[in-house]
Amino acid sequence: MTTSFLLDQAVTHQLRELAQQLRVDAVRCSAAAASGHPTSSMSAADLMAVLLARHLRYDFTDPRAPGNDHLIFSKGHASPLLYAMFKAAGAIGDEQLLSYRSAGSALEGHPTPRLPWVDVATGSLGQGLPIGVGIALAGRELDRMPYRVWVLCGDGELAEGSIWEAAEQAGYSRLDNLTAIVDVNRLGQRGPTRHGWDTGAYAARFRAFGWHAIEVNGHDIAAIDQALSEAAGKPGHPTVILARTRKGRGVAAVEDKEGQHGKPVPDAEEAIAELGGVRDIHVNVLPPAASTTLAATAPRVPAQGRPVRPQFHAGERPPGSRQAHPGERPPGPREWRPPEYQPGDMVATRTAFGQALAALGDARPEVVVLDGEVGDSTRTQYFATAHPDRFFEFYIAEQQMIAAAVGMQVRGWIPYAATFAAFLSRAYDFIRMAAISRASIRLSGSHAGVSIGQDGPSQMGLEDIAALRAVRGSTVLCPSDATQAAWLTGAMADIDGISYLRTARGDTPVLYPPGERFEVGGSRVLRSAADDQVTLVGAGVTVHEALAAADQLAADGVSARVIDAYSVKPIDGPALHAAARDTGRIVTVEDHWPEGGLGDAVLSALASSGEPLPAVTKLAVGGMPGSATPDEQLAVAGIDSTAIAEVARHLVAGRLPEP
Amino acid sequence: MTTSFLLDQAVTHQLRELAQQLRVDAVRCSAAAASGHPTSSMSAADLMAVLLARHLRYDFTDPRAPGNDHLIFSKGHASPLLYAMFKAAGAIGDEQLLSYRSAGSALEGHPTPRLPWVDVATGSLGQGLPIGVGIALAGRELDRMPYRVWVLCGDGELAEGSIWEAAEQAGYSRLDNLTAIVDVNRLGQRGPTRHGWDTGAYAARFRAFGWHAIEVNGHDIAAIDQALSEAAGKPGHPTVILARTRKGRGVAAVEDKEGQHGKPVPDAEEAIAELGGVRDIHVNVLPPAASTTLAATAPRVPAQGRPVRPQFHAGERPPGSRQAHPGERPPGPREWRPPEYQPGDMVATRTAFGQALAALGDARPEVVVLDGEVGDSTRTQYFATAHPDRFFEFYIAEQQMIAAAVGMQVRGWIPYAATFAAFLSRAYDFIRMAAISRASIRLSGSHAGVSIGQDGPSQMGLEDIAALRAVRGSTVLCPSDATQAAWLTGAMADIDGISYLRTARGDTPVLYPPGERFEVGGSRVLRSAADDQVTLVGAGVTVHEALAAADQLAADGVSARVIDAYSVKPIDGPALHAAARDTGRIVTVEDHWPEGGLGDAVLSALASSGEPLPAVTKLAVGGMPGSATPDEQLAVAGIDSTAIAEVARHLVAGRLPEP
Repeated sequence: MTTSFLLDQAVTHQLRELAQQLRVDAVRCSAAAASGHPTSSMSAADLMAVLLARHLRYDFTDPRAPGNDHLIFSKGHASPLLYAMFKAAGAIGDEQLLSYRSAGSALEGHPTPRLPWVDVATGSLGQGLPIGVGIALAGRELDRMPYRVWVLCGDGELAEGSIWEAAEQAGYSRLDNLTAIVDVNRLGQRGPTRHGWDTGAYAARFRAFGWHAIEVNGHDIAAIDQALSEAAGKPGHPTVILARTRKGRGVAAVEDKEGQHGKPVPDAEEAIAELGGVRDIHVNVLPPAASTTLAATAPRVPAQGRPVRPQFHAGERPPGSRQAHPGERPPGPREWRPPEYQPGDMVATRTAFGQALAALGDARPEVVVLDGEVGDSTRTQYFATAHPDRFFEFYIAEQQMIAAAVGMQVRGWIPYAATFAAFLSRAYDFIRMAAISRASIRLSGSHAGVSIGQDGPSQMGLEDIAALRAVRGSTVLCPSDATQAAWLTGAMADIDGISYLRTARGDTPVLYPPGERFEVGGSRVLRSAADDQVTLVGAGVTVHEALAAADQLAADGVSARVIDAYSVKPIDGPALHAAARDTGRIVTVEDHWPEGGLGDAVLSALASSGEPLPAVTKLAVGGMPGSATPDEQLAVAGIDSTAIAEVARHLVAGRLPEP
Repeated sequence: MTTSFLLDQAVTHQLRELAQQLRVDAVRCSAAAASGHPTSSMSAADLMAVLLARHLRYDFTDPRAPGNDHLIFSKGHASPLLYAMFKAAGAIGDEQLLSYRSAGSALEGHPTPRLPWVDVATGSLGQGLPIGVGIALAGRELDRMPYRVWVLCGDGELAEGSIWEAAEQAGYSRLDNLTAIVDVNRLGQRGPTRHGWDTGAYAARFRAFGWHAIEVNGHDIAAIDQALSEAAGKPGHPTVILARTRKGRGVAAVEDKEGQHGKPVPDAEEAIAELGGVRDIHVNVLPPAASTTLAATAPRVPAQGRPVRPQFHAGERPPGSRQAHPGERPPGPREWRPPEYQPGDMVATRTAFGQALAALGDARPEVVVLDGEVGDSTRTQYFATAHPDRFFEFYIAEQQMIAAAVGMQVRGWIPYAATFAAFLSRAYDFIRMAAISRASIRLSGSHAGVSIGQDGPSQMGLEDIAALRAVRGSTVLCPSDATQAAWLTGAMADIDGISYLRTARGDTPVLYPPGERFEVGGSRVLRSAADDQVTLVGAGVTVHEALAAADQLAADGVSARVIDAYSVKPIDGPALHAAARDTGRIVTVEDHWPEGGLGDAVLSALASSGEPLPAVTKLAVGGMPGSATPDEQLAVAGIDSTAIAEVARHLVAGRLPEP
């Protein structure tokens, strides 16, 4: 806890000077860039000056120090202020500050972890606070360390539902290591916010969710200092500081004026003069709290050894690759025993995922699991039972769940987050942003496809592969059997970036013997002969339909190759090219909409050769499903063995069936 | 306003009997289906019995009657209860009730508008209430009619942030025509909810957001009746009724027991006997309120003439098609004058969208526009200025914005909702569900692609085409110039389903003269010659890069065809097939991730012929962007004219460039 003293006049003056320096530097860097958000920075400058100089505990020479506090700019567009703070702390120089928003500079328009002092990318509003909740949960439940999490929010972003998912989670979990500082400057991008300077409206809301709320004048240095001290000393409650501020504070031409969002101030020189000129104050930021842990027991993973957050740059990281980092354990899964299934047994891939996860938890103490109130369906319940102290229930709040996973991996944990495949769409913006955060999180979506049966289309993940493929650096896995699902579950622990495992609701026959290993980026040829006339490519449940179709075709004298394309991204290009060469015709079949899924992935891989492509026919879910049995669903959707065999027959005969 | 009388004993008894009938029918239909959620239905049976018999105003013989109340089951899994209500109201018979969840039945596992008394699909929790907010807004601001909106929520779904976006919007807008009824049965899918029966916790939250909150025993008929009456008589406030209930109420084997979610009761016959046996009570539901309008002025669109909600069935509706429905105006845009731009002028497509929308608003009084606090960026500000009474500001709450659009189209309005393309990802689950709702909504995403420049990747829509293509029945449009953007903006008014217009931030040259019309599903060949050796396919900003590349190639003696594929879904298959035949080589170029976008759409269209495909090379955004100027971004991403020309040259020479 930070001790609070009444500030003497000299210190107050220094802090005001520091705040003016932050404003000046925000004006300067956005003027240099001819773009950016100086006015959104200037409103929060006093808040951040006091935080930086008197409350934040952070070793800027060692951003990986385990005891460091975490500072997240949920209002990521105030990046000029953040970078001005980094300069004041001595982390960057003036030249780097002025590289803001220029090509190649790590000082991007919105913060990203290309800068070592930035935990996560922000810029999509409403995400910083739920991510901060994840870090605060890790601090208390996993690391068991006294670091604090400070999140600077805008007032406009309080309209996002994700903020209230975070408010609920933090209030319920009594995260007193979390402080939200809301810069209530009353002006959004296009005009006034809903509640203007009515901090009481926000305070009432946060209090209802179990928070301690403090309303202050955000330009009153002493009041800010008092509030920040109070925040750190409120056991059992997260604190929100609702600070009334003026956007563009300090420069009359823009202060509290509409139409000044997201642009440099009109006359930077005049503004700098008005703010008292350029200063060069250096702040000696408080060191991290001593690494005493919160509980008598040691943290689960030695804090000194936590993996370093990877620093990726554009284009450097191929999807699914694994990079070793200093201080990190060597790549490759540690010894773990995946659960074993015997070929022919009927086991759902979701069950194998859950059982594998529980087993993985034995071998990998860094693995943590998050679920959105469907652990009995996703089968994370097995992990929850085996490792209750590393299982986190987020109830029906998928955005907060993904945000918490991002927050936990900031601290070096290996999070797996699970819900129905369909409901990952609820958190799609968080997944998109996680990729920009260079976060490594593992997702599992159960109940994929029409094969779930009676529950109907609202519960069917039919766009998940398209959505997850279109995430930078992602890995998309779609196992067809329990052995494969179990192995890939373990493999995901060592995949960088966003990895996704699609699982099915229903039991399917085990195809592969225990002990079989599956490369990310690989595939399995399940049927093959020298005289193959057509190749059937499936993934997940459709592999079984493809095998049945091959049997039907064999009865007609047509030899079909069958490929289990369990790795949809990266997909096994060589196996597909070989099939194209050998059989000349390809049928893809997927329990997914026709757009952006397996079929498109196959076509794209084949196109990458630069050669003319073979004839490819895509089978996918053709119409809006209703309720029906799984078998009926596959038939109506046109992706069952009968449909596959029919189109393959026509393709071999050199003509497509009548539509 | 519904008048409240104290209930006499006889009426109370009848209501109890009705509630038992609803429970029995929920047990029966889920037993017949061998699946479903009877226990989640039984907890809310008393609530719904009183609502149906004494408060709901609805003509079940005319679900399109303009004065009908709207009832939404936000907890869509309680569909057995809803269908039991429909039976009690005489809308369906017992045989149809027992077809629940069987193939072909419109009584799906979760409600969809395949049933004429269902406004929207639910089943993804947390969506019914924000959609109800949209209908209530339409009732007060657009239709100006006194119908009420009743939304049955589960307690578990109150964890969803979207519920609190709705709470904020409804409280702020003082929607006293909206009542949320929360079935607080304390049990979620896998166990207890966060707050159990602590209705006070929920009440405090809703009150903080400006709601009138009533806590009741949800099995006390008189208390329920009193609460529903009170809800209708609380001017200036939406009301939430927080009803403590017991899941599985009435059947000892399942009542208030864990492990009984989403499955039939173990012994249906015994349960029915325990509930007092099968009944056949018919409810005479109150007729709709007389069509007096709320205000002295008439509603904007005659309520009698509101378009009928289309009833689609699986596979019936090709993407982008337009079906005429009884009572609806004939297809095709009415007379409107799109804004005019002269070839060579520099105009951003987002600006053309905004200007076209304002003009469209003159001709089409049903057009309403929704924005998420970025109207100055998306350019919906032009519509807001021209038609302030049909413009809705949702602040930074994209989920509520899309939900409101869905709600407004229920009432026959033609909504356009806009934000940055990147931030539509925040509402992806709502867009997915809107398709299952057979809703017709128009989306516009601005600031697409790396070409936005300095703001960085958090603001760049780079997955929007993949996500929107993978929505059932969607239309995806990506205009390259202002003339096209303006025309397509108008055309969207008459597109059924989810349509999406992707616009760019920066100014681009106008390519097409005023008055030119663009078919959905069409394209434009901008360069073509008999000796074309390669075809360059672009959309949006990349069309301009492709044209510049063609110039560079011409200087090298390579003749390139250029196609403006502004309609990405449906895409112009014939033009692509012709290009494949004529030029044999195709380069696609898009300001989007490589997955699921234009390139995949082109490949998929070419594959549909069943013939071997030409050589296709996809150019797309290759790495994680940072900040840079738009031109620098296009170059670094490998999608500028230089990159296109280089790959085309190599393709013509028969080899790909070194990676």
